Amino acid sequence: MASSARSNALRNLRFVLRYDGTEFQGWQTQPGYRTVQETFEAAVRGVTCDAVVRANTSGRTDAGVHALAQVVNLYSRTYLDCRTLVKAVNARLPEDVSVLSIDDVPQSFCASKDATSKRYRYVINDGLLRDPFLRRYALHSWKILDVPAMDAGAKFLLGRHDFRSFETEYPNRLSSIRTMFHAAVERVEPGRLHIEVEADGFLYNMVRGIAGTLIKIGRREWPPESVARILAALDRREAGMNVPPEGLFLVQVHYGL
Amino acid sequence: MASSARSNALRNLRFVLRYDGTEFQGWQTQPGYRTVQETFEAAVRGVTCDAVVRANTSGRTDAGVHALAQVVNLYSRTYLDCRTLVKAVNARLPEDVSVLSIDDVPQSFCASKDATSKRYRYVINDGLLRDPFLRRYALHSWKILDVPAMDAGAKFLLGRHDFRSFETEYPNRLSSIRTMFHAAVERVEPGRLHIEVEADGFLYNMVRGIAGTLIKIGRREWPPESVARILAALDRREAGMNVPPEGLFLVQVHYGL
Repeated sequence: MASSARSNALRNLRFVLRYDGTEFQGWQTQPGYRTVQETFEAAVRGVTCDAVVRANTSGRTDAGVHALAQVVNLYSRTYLDCRTLVKAVNARLPEDVSVLSIDDVPQSFCASKDATSKRYRYVINDGLLRDPFLRRYALHSWKILDVPAMDAGAKFLLGRHDFRSFETEYPNRLSSIRTMFHAAVERVEPGRLHIEVEADGFLYNMVRGIAGTLIKIGRREWPPESVARILAALDRREAGMNVPPEGLFLVQVHYGL
Repeated sequence: MASSARSNALRNLRFVLRYDGTEFQGWQTQPGYRTVQETFEAAVRGVTCDAVVRANTSGRTDAGVHALAQVVNLYSRTYLDCRTLVKAVNARLPEDVSVLSIDDVPQSFCASKDATSKRYRYVINDGLLRDPFLRRYALHSWKILDVPAMDAGAKFLLGRHDFRSFETEYPNRLSSIRTMFHAAVERVEPGRLHIEVEADGFLYNMVRGIAGTLIKIGRREWPPESVARILAALDRREAGMNVPPEGLFLVQVHYGL
């Protein structure tokens, strides 16, 4: 029967999500906690009536980390068109998470394995004005940071390196070698600066360790060249602290070439 | 004695404050509620050791309304310089309120009576993307609003008018005649627009009634010219609804010419 054939056809849907991580205990479902994954899957299930919805993400963000454009895929039997789905899922989501877009993608697409690079931003509010509107979305530093020094330090991250000095709980992966495509620090307005990094993959807490290291440089406690020394040491104890999650945003995930 | 003379000298200090109104029950002290006034006065008292600190504000913002640059003055016996005061008061304030600056002003300065104009902004997030990062700082409209029509409607507010059609609980003032110096609606980016108004004074809920009226125009339910009709009616029932507080910001207060 045609209708049966249609209802059995599994679609692979790619979602782009934006969320304010402040009130989520991270991406991954954990019993007893409010997580983005659980909240999102419940909203989709409510619309598609799939018995099971399992969302694959480009990467699991930690508690308190935000996403401007997280990419997720899942299989569904729904026959609703993508535009209707966006509206229907958004109507079921709470205000701190939103679907930006939904597309049909080939069966083989996997948001996690197919990601070729990801870009993260760490936002810092520096100076005497601790901006009330940034408190959920930036780290505050009373000391004004030296942005050119931080940017010079960031440049040492570019290229292919073993980043284990920036990995929490090493060893937890087969390889800690990654390629950094972009690493820059920019003052976007007085009192606000962005650390922005893009790589083919990130180790656990890598962006937060990089940000903590660049802040040391911005405070002129370490010279920009210390990044080269830290990379060469292959020792987490050499890098700066892991900064808190509220300043961290997953900005974009790239696929293909 | 010199020290006694110094300790008796009352200074009139002008503070510029920024606050995220989300978690405050408005400006004015009310027993049992968290208010900006009480929070601010307690922080100042902790620094200056004045027995009583009473802050006069340019205007009391309602529950949930934000301020980018609220102006306040108070009398104090402190001999700390203004730069030190900024740091010390900020160190005692919670993260959702911040002192931007402090200045010594003439004894006669009154933040309320001397204000010559105030500027407010109402932020609207329109369209299918209900941005999670705007939910505390904007009203969301699923319908994309017609900004040129709203701006055309706003222009009817310019000049000297009796604004009682936009006043909640009329009559509650001697006069509801005010002069509007600026009234404009602008799309600042896709999905985000600002209604911005500046006048020599605002009646109770006036900005929120104006915003509700302009939204009706933006939804093409009313023509821009309806603003002229509403003003002429001198009747609150003719205007649009009062929109919720989360989109409302006190942007600036002007003094003198």
